[in-house]
Amino acid sequence: MCYMENIYRERIERLRELMRAKDWDAVLITGGDPHGSEYPAERWKQVQWLSGFTGEAGDLVVTLDHAGLWTDTRYFIQAVRQLEGTGVELHKTRVPEQVLIPEWLGRQFGGDGIIAVDGLCTGVDFARSIPGTVVGVPDILSLLWTDRPEIPHTPVFTVQAGESRESKLDWLRDRLADMGCDGMLLTALDEIAWLLNVRGADIEYNPLVISYLLVTSGGAEWYEAKGGEEDPQTAATVSILESEGVAVLPYSEIGEALRGFSGRLFVDTSTLNWSLYEELSSAGTRLLEGTSPVGLRKAVKNEFEIEGMRGIHIKDGLAMERFLYWLEKSVQGGREISEWDAAVMLGRFRSEIPEYMGDSFETISAYGPSAALPHYVTPREGSPVLCEQGLYLCDSGGQYSCGTTDITRTVPLGECSQLEKEDYTLVLKGHIALAMAVFPAGTAGCQIDALAREPLWRSYRNFGHGTGHGIGYFLGVHEGPQDIRQNFNSTPLLPGMITSDEPGIYREGRHGVRHENLLLCVDAGSNEFGSWRAFETLTLCHFDTSALLPELLDADERKWLNSYNDRVFATLGRLLPAEEREWLYSKTRPI
Amino acid sequence: MCYMENIYRERIERLRELMRAKDWDAVLITGGDPHGSEYPAERWKQVQWLSGFTGEAGDLVVTLDHAGLWTDTRYFIQAVRQLEGTGVELHKTRVPEQVLIPEWLGRQFGGDGIIAVDGLCTGVDFARSIPGTVVGVPDILSLLWTDRPEIPHTPVFTVQAGESRESKLDWLRDRLADMGCDGMLLTALDEIAWLLNVRGADIEYNPLVISYLLVTSGGAEWYEAKGGEEDPQTAATVSILESEGVAVLPYSEIGEALRGFSGRLFVDTSTLNWSLYEELSSAGTRLLEGTSPVGLRKAVKNEFEIEGMRGIHIKDGLAMERFLYWLEKSVQGGREISEWDAAVMLGRFRSEIPEYMGDSFETISAYGPSAALPHYVTPREGSPVLCEQGLYLCDSGGQYSCGTTDITRTVPLGECSQLEKEDYTLVLKGHIALAMAVFPAGTAGCQIDALAREPLWRSYRNFGHGTGHGIGYFLGVHEGPQDIRQNFNSTPLLPGMITSDEPGIYREGRHGVRHENLLLCVDAGSNEFGSWRAFETLTLCHFDTSALLPELLDADERKWLNSYNDRVFATLGRLLPAEEREWLYSKTRPI
Repeated sequence: MCYMENIYRERIERLRELMRAKDWDAVLITGGDPHGSEYPAERWKQVQWLSGFTGEAGDLVVTLDHAGLWTDTRYFIQAVRQLEGTGVELHKTRVPEQVLIPEWLGRQFGGDGIIAVDGLCTGVDFARSIPGTVVGVPDILSLLWTDRPEIPHTPVFTVQAGESRESKLDWLRDRLADMGCDGMLLTALDEIAWLLNVRGADIEYNPLVISYLLVTSGGAEWYEAKGGEEDPQTAATVSILESEGVAVLPYSEIGEALRGFSGRLFVDTSTLNWSLYEELSSAGTRLLEGTSPVGLRKAVKNEFEIEGMRGIHIKDGLAMERFLYWLEKSVQGGREISEWDAAVMLGRFRSEIPEYMGDSFETISAYGPSAALPHYVTPREGSPVLCEQGLYLCDSGGQYSCGTTDITRTVPLGECSQLEKEDYTLVLKGHIALAMAVFPAGTAGCQIDALAREPLWRSYRNFGHGTGHGIGYFLGVHEGPQDIRQNFNSTPLLPGMITSDEPGIYREGRHGVRHENLLLCVDAGSNEFGSWRAFETLTLCHFDTSALLPELLDADERKWLNSYNDRVFATLGRLLPAEEREWLYSKTRPI
Repeated sequence: MCYMENIYRERIERLRELMRAKDWDAVLITGGDPHGSEYPAERWKQVQWLSGFTGEAGDLVVTLDHAGLWTDTRYFIQAVRQLEGTGVELHKTRVPEQVLIPEWLGRQFGGDGIIAVDGLCTGVDFARSIPGTVVGVPDILSLLWTDRPEIPHTPVFTVQAGESRESKLDWLRDRLADMGCDGMLLTALDEIAWLLNVRGADIEYNPLVISYLLVTSGGAEWYEAKGGEEDPQTAATVSILESEGVAVLPYSEIGEALRGFSGRLFVDTSTLNWSLYEELSSAGTRLLEGTSPVGLRKAVKNEFEIEGMRGIHIKDGLAMERFLYWLEKSVQGGREISEWDAAVMLGRFRSEIPEYMGDSFETISAYGPSAALPHYVTPREGSPVLCEQGLYLCDSGGQYSCGTTDITRTVPLGECSQLEKEDYTLVLKGHIALAMAVFPAGTAGCQIDALAREPLWRSYRNFGHGTGHGIGYFLGVHEGPQDIRQNFNSTPLLPGMITSDEPGIYREGRHGVRHENLLLCVDAGSNEFGSWRAFETLTLCHFDTSALLPELLDADERKWLNSYNDRVFATLGRLLPAEEREWLYSKTRPI
């Protein structure tokens, strides 16, 4: 422990030496990468290298006499533990009294500070919000971090996605022409992967390729982090792309390419990094800043993608049912299964699916009090052992060549308390209310979020996360622009969008409940009152009725539940071995 | 008809002569008054004078070769009818293809137009949105409109409101000091009336006094449209105010006062008019622009106001029940009652209440197809006669010295169709869902609006207006800043706020249903999930169960309805004559 403390203190002191030499008042190190990604590759886990903090969201500011980590409610406990002895102080965000980094820097230095930022890992919008003189230094920590991981370059491959890259590029060129632009710099990795129908494995759980894409009226240049020697898959992919007029160029040459660009360039400053923006500014490039049109189009799945998602949810559902059968038999059979063991076994069932490419995020396998943390990380060593009582929560998903899944089931392992049963039932009521919702065309997710919460609210219960997030087609398990949450977001839910439905209840030190399916937004016809939208549930895995308080369900909810469980058995039953089929039949009996 | 056409054509031509003489490219005449009021006094019904259009929302633009009226969906049919032969064309707003006035002017004149506006009746925010050179002319139409009504000056009186004007002024001065301001110019009439605890009758249905209020750290100056000779009530009011340090000065002197103001002045540009803003600009006054803090504080009623509202809802409820009894007996007795007759009779019952000061808006008395128009205006002559079948909708309210009411009942007059019954029941389900709602502290109205709509949505029905509006304490029947509607509005619902709950279903040519009560937001305690809010229903008048399809109600809804009707009888029954009491007893029997 002592040794670890010294490492981070020492690293921060070395950074301060650099600051003194350069005359910087503060250094800002974000938890981001050069592409505004939600999850960065190892190379960009700079906050972790400097402070030891491993949470998924956190930015660090170092001055000559202070080092602070800014992170949100989800990571307070973890941050306190991990920052002990490092000299780094926790600054809480998403609390009423929060003082965010720009305001904090303003209080320290007024408008006169010289603030060095890692220009690559700081987004334009964030950099602009900082008071004082912002000095963008690309890869600032590379000056100290000598054994820093390289930019990853896993094999790159093409995928079928129901629309050719030519068609997608032509569509984008039309949009750019509409906006009077001669080109667009794409910086968001999932937008690039979608547009080019390519995938890789550069970021854990995310089938993405670290790259930039410059689309112009006449061509497309893909700046991709190729290694010296190409693997055959990547070589084939490059050859296909080049034959279709997409030039494949080294990642490091993007800056030079931008300096050579003439005309008006569209950029999305929510994912553009400060260093590239400075390149563009110094070259005097005319910019149109806006929200990339790719995000919205990507979110609306085409028929091919929808069919892929429907199909893979049958296979994913089979893996889930086999896992749940194994779990029940193991626990009832007195075998010692830990949270970690369960997560491993679930991964094994999924990995038997031919289209499986990996998990879509780290499985949350949480028993009893563990499940009270919505973002619980199951420890590899010493995770709690499952007993024949109470609730076990499992939130997991797979990346498949024909889709992405994300499912949460809360499983009664035996006797449950009245409170566990109430929470289990109320969360299911909330889940069903959203799944059954019918709403007018043009409605945004934040306008129907309350439907999933109201059954909980009426019993004075609530949950502190969003009800639903968008999900990609063999892309990120989280994607925008739509969502279903309390925060205002004007993006309407459009037919073809896929969004999760995952209300929950969490009771510290006791238990947690979450029920999650993926919902496809569909056209539900029109009448004298206008056009209507509804949801089709994609996820196929029964909801256990043993912890349910049926008297809390109304007739519609009961009907929905019976019909859903019936559909699960009708679809999956015939594909399961006899023993599992019998078990699923009994699990899906109507209530 | 021919004569009328000529009048408006001729008036517009005379305006064009003026435009040519002054070298104006366009003249903008808004439907507003100098105070950003929702309802203007007769003097400011300029759109009506110039075009004949009497709708409550509409702005007029006249160029040398075009005259256009901009109004929203509610008034399309009326506008087409009233503009016939005037040469004025309808420009539709609140439709997807809308081109609003600033954009339209931009298309006509680019940035080079000279646009004359009535500086008094055009708000700062609107004037700023207009491209080109904006020339503000106070009372522009007075040059043509020779018999224009004067600024109204009805008697002014003081009211009890649970907090002294001294306390309110001190509170405001503290807020101004917090914001580093030396004074505030109040322009919104309801804010001035609230702050000074004064009322008048300058605007129909609105107990307001046309005036400006200048609050400084040391004093307060009330610029009020006094006549040459004061009535005794006004004289007494003035004397009270002056004894408390509020100087009462002529309305016309506000410009001069502003020119003499030194220091930093807070103004709310959403209700400040362009002419006063130009006065301030030319005087070089330092301004802080923002949202007036008075609106939010006014919306949160104090205990005195809440008790007043609770009390007056008993009396208003008695008037409603006597009216409904009279209506049922009259219709069943074969008497010929028109929509207009019914409205008059309801007004008569209300006027017997000692605290009655007038109606809070024009009663909507609508039978059958009339009720399909949410903003139906009952004609004085030839309104439809009520028969012993179908639905009659009555939306009405009173202004009382101790509160304001607003209630809608949809009354089955006899046999109803299945569709009428379904709509009646579904709207009641929506009403009840909102009335029963429990929600976390900090929730805004737009985040729970869907609760009232979901029972309708599930049957593919909807309504095109908001679910709820704020209401004043013996002030406007519509007030902000909170509301309950789909449009984003971040103002949270705070304990003490009173908001309507009025979902509906409207079927053109057939019928309309709306059920409206007023809801008081109350503190509902706190627990491990945070603090909770709920509603207390203030309105007391039974919901008729004869058109109800009880099988569409769930157990909670049925319980709410029976308990509400029971409370109505328990509160009002003993205060009614025996015959009405018997009748109400039968009307409120549980289902």
